[in-house]
Amino acid sequence: MRVLVDGMEGGTVAAGDRGLAYGDGLFETMRAHAGTVPWWPAHWRRLLHGAQRLRIPVPAEADVVQHVTALLQGGDGVVKLLLTRGAGGRGYTPPPEPAPTCIVSRHPVPVATPGGLKLRWCDTRLAEQPMLAGIKHCNRLEQVLARLEWTAPGCPMPDADDGLMRATSGDVVCATSANVFALIDGQWRTPPVDVCGVAGVCREWALARLDARTETLSPQHVESAEAVFLCNAVRGILPVARLGDRTWSPHPRVAAARRALALDHPAFAAPPETP
Amino acid sequence: MRVLVDGMEGGTVAAGDRGLAYGDGLFETMRAHAGTVPWWPAHWRRLLHGAQRLRIPVPAEADVVQHVTALLQGGDGVVKLLLTRGAGGRGYTPPPEPAPTCIVSRHPVPVATPGGLKLRWCDTRLAEQPMLAGIKHCNRLEQVLARLEWTAPGCPMPDADDGLMRATSGDVVCATSANVFALIDGQWRTPPVDVCGVAGVCREWALARLDARTETLSPQHVESAEAVFLCNAVRGILPVARLGDRTWSPHPRVAAARRALALDHPAFAAPPETP
Repeated sequence: MRVLVDGMEGGTVAAGDRGLAYGDGLFETMRAHAGTVPWWPAHWRRLLHGAQRLRIPVPAEADVVQHVTALLQGGDGVVKLLLTRGAGGRGYTPPPEPAPTCIVSRHPVPVATPGGLKLRWCDTRLAEQPMLAGIKHCNRLEQVLARLEWTAPGCPMPDADDGLMRATSGDVVCATSANVFALIDGQWRTPPVDVCGVAGVCREWALARLDARTETLSPQHVESAEAVFLCNAVRGILPVARLGDRTWSPHPRVAAARRALALDHPAFAAPPETP
Repeated sequence: MRVLVDGMEGGTVAAGDRGLAYGDGLFETMRAHAGTVPWWPAHWRRLLHGAQRLRIPVPAEADVVQHVTALLQGGDGVVKLLLTRGAGGRGYTPPPEPAPTCIVSRHPVPVATPGGLKLRWCDTRLAEQPMLAGIKHCNRLEQVLARLEWTAPGCPMPDADDGLMRATSGDVVCATSANVFALIDGQWRTPPVDVCGVAGVCREWALARLDARTETLSPQHVESAEAVFLCNAVRGILPVARLGDRTWSPHPRVAAARRALALDHPAFAAPPETP
C-alpha cells in the first residue's frame, strides 16, 4: 500500500490523533480507473455530509484530488481516504479548531469472486444510532466483530464471502461491507439506513438507476426474494448465489443491473462474470 | 504529553493501523501516584476482558508496566494506555495473527472543580450494543457527539462540567466520561452497563466499598435522589451540585464515600474539596 498523510510520503500519524483514540473520523473507499475516481463527486459529497454531522473541518477538495491523482499515476486500483479530527488532548471534547489528518492510500483491486456470492447471517447485530447512521464514520467495531465470527469455533459457513447483518430490531440492514438489494414482486428493494448502516455510493446509484425502493426488510423478505445482490463502490454489483440454506440461480434482472452499472462506471465495464 | 509507542520514543503510528481505521482498540485511563498506578490490577483486568471480547492479543504485562514506570519516573499524573489491533490491510477482517500497537502516554492531573459539579442532560443517546457494553473500546463517537453539544448554538448550560447520557430506551447510563451514583432511599445505586456504558474501575470500587446496588435508573430517579456523585479512575468521586434545574447541597454520605476512597487510593487521599 502506498500512502500519503496530509500529502506527505512517510505513512505515519501522531500517536495522539483522535482517529486512533476514539475512531473520531470518516472514510471513503473508492474504485479508481485509469488514474481517476469516476464516482469522486458522490464520495466527496458523502464525506462532506459526514464531516458536517461530526463537525470535522474538511481540507480543500483540490488538495485531496491532487493527492489521489499523485498516488494513482494513471493507474487502476482502490483508493481509501481517511479523514480524522487530528491531534487532540486526552478527553472526548474536540479541540475548538481541529487540524484534521487526511490519509490517502492506494490498494489493489480485489479479486473477483467466481460465481455468485455465498452469504451467511451474522450473529452480531447493528445497534440503532440515528446520529451516526448513514455516514461512513470510523466506529466500526460491529463490523470487525461480525467478521470475527468467520474464525470463531463452530462458525457455520466459514467459507462465506460476506454476511448479512440485522439491526437490534431484527430487520436486515446490509452486509459487513456492502449494501443489499432484494427483488420482491418485480421491484428492487433495499433497507433504509436511517438508524444504522451506511448510505453506500453504489447503493445511491442503484436506487436511482434501477428505480429501487427503500423499504424495511425482514430476513424472511430477503430469503423469499426472487434475486439478491450486494453492492459497494469498490466491487460494483455482486450477485448472491446463496444465503444460508437458500440458493438462487442467475437472474436476468441482476445481469441487467450489472449492464447498467457497466455503462455508468468504466471500472465495472468488463463483461459481468458468469454467475 | 510524553508518549511511548511499543516502548519506543517517537510518538507515531503507521497510517494503516486498525485503531485509526476502525477504532479497533481498547484504552485505559489511570491515575498515577508517586511513580505507580495504584489501581493497575483492576485496569489490567478490564483491558484483558475487553481484549478477550474483541480478540486482540495483549502484550506482556511486565513490558507495559515497564513503559508506564519509565514515563512516570516516580511522579504523579494520568497515564493513558491505548492498545490497538495494529496494522491491517484494507477491510474489516482482522489479520489472523495481529501485532497490536501499544501506546502509553502521560498527562497532567486534571484541575479539581471547585464546589460540586454542574451537570446537564445530553441529547445524544447511547445506542444499545451488548457486545460492546462494559468494555473501554475505542468507538467513542457518541461521547464526542455528546461533548460537541456544549458548543452547539443554543446549548443550555454551556458552562456544565459534564453531562448525563441516556440509552435509547431513555434510562440513565453514565456521564460522558464518568459513571454516576444516586442515593435513593438511603442506598447508593448505579445503572447497569450491560447494554451500553463502561464498567468503570472507580465504579467497581464504589459498588464493592459503598455496598451500592446496580439498578435501572430513570432521569426522574436521578433527579429525585438525595445525593448524586460521578466517579472515574482519574478524578475519583465528584459530588454533583446541580443537574439542569435540580440542585443538591453537600451530603454527608458523599463526604463519607470520598473519605473511604481516600483510604484506598493514595492519589485521592488529599482532604476532599469543600463541595
